[in-house]
Amino acid sequence: MPVQVELSRIILCEISEKQAIYLREVGGIREFPIIIGIYEASCIDRRVKGYHPPRPLTHDLMSGIIHALEADFESVVITELVDETYYAKLCLRRNDNAVLEIDSRPSDAIAIAVTRSPAIPIYVTEEVLSAALADNNKPQG
Amino acid sequence: MPVQVELSRIILCEISEKQAIYLREVGGIREFPIIIGIYEASCIDRRVKGYHPPRPLTHDLMSGIIHALEADFESVVITELVDETYYAKLCLRRNDNAVLEIDSRPSDAIAIAVTRSPAIPIYVTEEVLSAALADNNKPQG
Repeated sequence: MPVQVELSRIILCEISEKQAIYLREVGGIREFPIIIGIYEASCIDRRVKGYHPPRPLTHDLMSGIIHALEADFESVVITELVDETYYAKLCLRRNDNAVLEIDSRPSDAIAIAVTRSPAIPIYVTEEVLSAALADNNKPQG
Repeated sequence: MPVQVELSRIILCEISEKQAIYLREVGGIREFPIIIGIYEASCIDRRVKGYHPPRPLTHDLMSGIIHALEADFESVVITELVDETYYAKLCLRRNDNAVLEIDSRPSDAIAIAVTRSPAIPIYVTEEVLSAALADNNKPQG
């Protein structure tokens, strides 16, 4: 059964190329970091802070495409942790109600998830959550 | 009548945050630069060079979404040059043949366009091309 998590912290460090976001279990205390690039972290940070750029940035364009194609975001699921790297699926609901799963890096999927209203739920499989908590190397996403 | 252009040069400079791509008229000599960020320039450069990352990067995710929603890329049109900034439309063809235009930065649209096979045509309106050639400030895109 996947565990719902939410973005709990974004740690930006300008002198490093590696940044960290933390996901915490909704209604729980289990939390784990995902190491992402500075560009992806800045995207998430800007979006959490509600910054609206004059032109659509990359993740806004993605939202625009999905809206134009009459689909909607359903959820994000972090499905795998392999070789210190997380893998995720972005789930979309098409206008005929079919749900489609598309391979995504967690960072892209989370950048989209955090700015929708209501927010798109983020899940992690119990297996990945256990592996994440046991991993001291801070895998990338 | 829009003028078809193609990516003719990517100038990457690691000590600057501003990079340049050049678009040249297909079958002609008119050429103009668009100043873009290092992240966007690196994306375009990687894609032109055929680098296939193990996980889908942001523009690959966008292609994945469009494919999953049974649409296809039709063209890119650079439509405006206002206050030293270019604006573009990413045109998609839906499976019912309707063509949809979505606001995009030229850099995102071109990152997608350059890697499709066959390549997605890139157009610029004659008005924007004339303004670009007359502008010595190298507007951003």
